[in-house]
Amino acid sequence: MNQAYVNPFINATIKLFEEIFHTTPVFGKPYLLKANETHNWDVSAMIGLAGETQGAVILAFSEENAAKIATAMIGSPKTALDEDVTDVIGELINIVAGNAKKDLEQMRILISLPTIITGSNHRIVKTDKAAVLVGIPFTSDKGDFQLLISMQGLLTDEDNF
Amino acid sequence: MNQAYVNPFINATIKLFEEIFHTTPVFGKPYLLKANETHNWDVSAMIGLAGETQGAVILAFSEENAAKIATAMIGSPKTALDEDVTDVIGELINIVAGNAKKDLEQMRILISLPTIITGSNHRIVKTDKAAVLVGIPFTSDKGDFQLLISMQGLLTDEDNF
Repeated sequence: MNQAYVNPFINATIKLFEEIFHTTPVFGKPYLLKANETHNWDVSAMIGLAGETQGAVILAFSEENAAKIATAMIGSPKTALDEDVTDVIGELINIVAGNAKKDLEQMRILISLPTIITGSNHRIVKTDKAAVLVGIPFTSDKGDFQLLISMQGLLTDEDNF
Repeated sequence: MNQAYVNPFINATIKLFEEIFHTTPVFGKPYLLKANETHNWDVSAMIGLAGETQGAVILAFSEENAAKIATAMIGSPKTALDEDVTDVIGELINIVAGNAKKDLEQMRILISLPTIITGSNHRIVKTDKAAVLVGIPFTSDKGDFQLLISMQGLLTDEDNF
């Protein structure tokens, strides 16, 4: 994988959890998402990338874990996917983008406005044949989630997923 | 509404249908999407926008209408949301972005890679308080759909939704 593209988002995600939740999330082995794979995501926050490369970066959560993380962020207990919870998820991707901004600017990549998608077991499908969709599972004591990166030029010749 | 932001996408959508399907789609009155509104969309194709303004442009379809449009595009009958259908929806947003590119470049707006979201009744929620999510219903004899635009600076003082 082209680590220059991936690392800003992994580092930004770790920094987010360390600064906001005072915990360090652990990330697992990146994997390639297949077109017909089913997931267990109920809410995703997405930011488009444009410039030297194009793509999108996504944080994806189950309803349970989104509510758990929102509870940790706003202090009042949340159990379902309401507007408070989607607001928190949107804020998280905003912070990730903000944290990654300096690295992205060096690579001449601009970011779009975050968009939130909700829906039981919705799927995110790559559409450009030049791009891949890579998932990076994160574990944290505030709730688990996935970092997803869809980008042209993300894979290198050394990748054997 | 800031027509300079909206018109490139409306015109690009009309041009797509005229060139590919030899039919002129009709668009209805733009409306503001509320945060807790439920929709009837099963597949959305999204492109992020970055630069002078940030946002996203989305084409959203019910499964039935996505299958109908895919049938018209590839010639073989489609009734459900399979990989052929999501490929067609991805191709449509690619063509819309391609058609709008010249206008966008004049406004210094770059586009990200398209992303497809599938999921029964998934919802798209704006996340940035400075942005709005506007829906524009389209009717065509190849199937109905919605053009959605989420963008900073989209509304003007004259708007009274």
